Amino acid sequence: MYIGVDLGGTKIAVGLVDETAKIIESVSVATKSERPCSEIVADMVDCIEKVCTKAGISRRQLLRVGIGSPGIVDKRSGVLVYANNIRERNLPLCAELSKHMDCPVFIENDANCAALGESIAGVSSGISNSVMITLGTGIGGGIIIDGRIYSGSGGAGGEIGHMVIRHDGEQCSCGRRGCWESYASATALNRNVRRVIADFPNSLVAKLAKGDINNANCKIPFEAARQGDEIGKLIVNEYIEHVSVGIANIINIFQPEVMAIGGGIGNEGEPLIAPVRELSRKWVYSQDTPPCDIKHALLGNNAGIIGAAMLTE
Amino acid sequence: MYIGVDLGGTKIAVGLVDETAKIIESVSVATKSERPCSEIVADMVDCIEKVCTKAGISRRQLLRVGIGSPGIVDKRSGVLVYANNIRERNLPLCAELSKHMDCPVFIENDANCAALGESIAGVSSGISNSVMITLGTGIGGGIIIDGRIYSGSGGAGGEIGHMVIRHDGEQCSCGRRGCWESYASATALNRNVRRVIADFPNSLVAKLAKGDINNANCKIPFEAARQGDEIGKLIVNEYIEHVSVGIANIINIFQPEVMAIGGGIGNEGEPLIAPVRELSRKWVYSQDTPPCDIKHALLGNNAGIIGAAMLTE
Repeated sequence: MYIGVDLGGTKIAVGLVDETAKIIESVSVATKSERPCSEIVADMVDCIEKVCTKAGISRRQLLRVGIGSPGIVDKRSGVLVYANNIRERNLPLCAELSKHMDCPVFIENDANCAALGESIAGVSSGISNSVMITLGTGIGGGIIIDGRIYSGSGGAGGEIGHMVIRHDGEQCSCGRRGCWESYASATALNRNVRRVIADFPNSLVAKLAKGDINNANCKIPFEAARQGDEIGKLIVNEYIEHVSVGIANIINIFQPEVMAIGGGIGNEGEPLIAPVRELSRKWVYSQDTPPCDIKHALLGNNAGIIGAAMLTE
Repeated sequence: MYIGVDLGGTKIAVGLVDETAKIIESVSVATKSERPCSEIVADMVDCIEKVCTKAGISRRQLLRVGIGSPGIVDKRSGVLVYANNIRERNLPLCAELSKHMDCPVFIENDANCAALGESIAGVSSGISNSVMITLGTGIGGGIIIDGRIYSGSGGAGGEIGHMVIRHDGEQCSCGRRGCWESYASATALNRNVRRVIADFPNSLVAKLAKGDINNANCKIPFEAARQGDEIGKLIVNEYIEHVSVGIANIINIFQPEVMAIGGGIGNEGEPLIAPVRELSRKWVYSQDTPPCDIKHALLGNNAGIIGAAMLTE
């Protein structure tokens, strides 16, 4: 039995995962990311104890623990170098957690864990080369090559969201301009929804938000488009175009067998993915090789826990 | 002893390569790319015979032959699927050449071969994760992961030049708009040199080209910039900016230890590479991990022959 820890900005989710990559038990606790490392680790240990008790096993029976963490992770030293939603830098998470465990503890970036989880038990199961993106607050990316996570020489690779698709374009949170994330994340889509609410108060988009930009969310434009609203369609089509630009780039670079799309917006499913498939297929360089299979990720939030539990050296 | 074949649009270069990845003998012959596959293969066999004779060995002593080819290659079936400078499609190069050889014959994309050559005997020697780009007529890309070529599930990965960096930008030869290649290839730089010759006939750039756009080449703006010419500097700086956008993207995605820059423009050396290093470093997402080492490729045209000779299953 393995433990997968999904260390998020708001909650820490811990799952007991069996040899078939199935979550047996899980619990979660608030991250309170302002706390020192030792307290966060103490809560992780508590959660591990709880899932073991629920499953009727001893902590000593665990074969390994994996932590999926936001930000930049040094997996060799087991240190969380930097995450923009956790206060401290250079958290020695593996060393701290190891003090309480009898098994090895691994760490990896959370988007990479999700990609690994999907490649073991989800949409890209059994596929050796796949890429997963999560369309959320940012764009997370996870690259699987020969069934293993590829994260570059310093563990900071896979930052696919920070691939510039429009040089000198929209300001990105990373400091650069024109990153894919600044066009195709939920944050970017939300920005456009807010603009429409402010500028077109009589539009269906504005009505679905009750005229309040604070009610803006990413489901609204898809709902408006479904109801035939022109502005809704415009926002959705522009968003789909921007998602497709990045996906075609990734296919040109990696030619993965499967491209998995997850994250909140990924849940729109085929109304999002079908046109992305069509557009990116048109733009891909090689028209002579079998097309990459673009699919909705299957595991949702569980992908991160499963992938973390499946981390090995 | 191994044979590396570099099948170019204008010439076929064949090298006899030893176990230390050193070229012992080499010969070349015109490609005449309009010919049927069997004639091209016959010339390859001739060249192989010649280098063996020159080195005083028998063709039977060869352990393997590798072909580096432009375009899209199916390395499993040994077929050159498509290259825009070779007339026929689906050339069964490995099968044809195998008829004349007693050893295995492999095929790979030429940019991938060059990247492998550099990673074995050149600037990225001994580095497990590296990326090589060649700034030539197009932008070639070769990705080395764990010391091996990564070319995607259908062999058409690594098309880094066809990563869009300006959505809806300049027209690219691939049909898409805004590809990196349409801003940072020699063709793109040359286009700007020609524009300056036509629009600013009194500029130093125009004078270096004797006022004739047919004399435009990529050395001119660098030479003009060296002489302090403002228009020359402008062209070079814009070019460097576009090269750097793509390189920062690649570093964000791959975080390679070494990024090798080859191709004709790569020969400008440090006046090109030093500012690219500075600019891309500023743009890279992770400022907390060791910077990627951006370097001029070492092997020139030999990289392709050496990499081809070093291909294995």
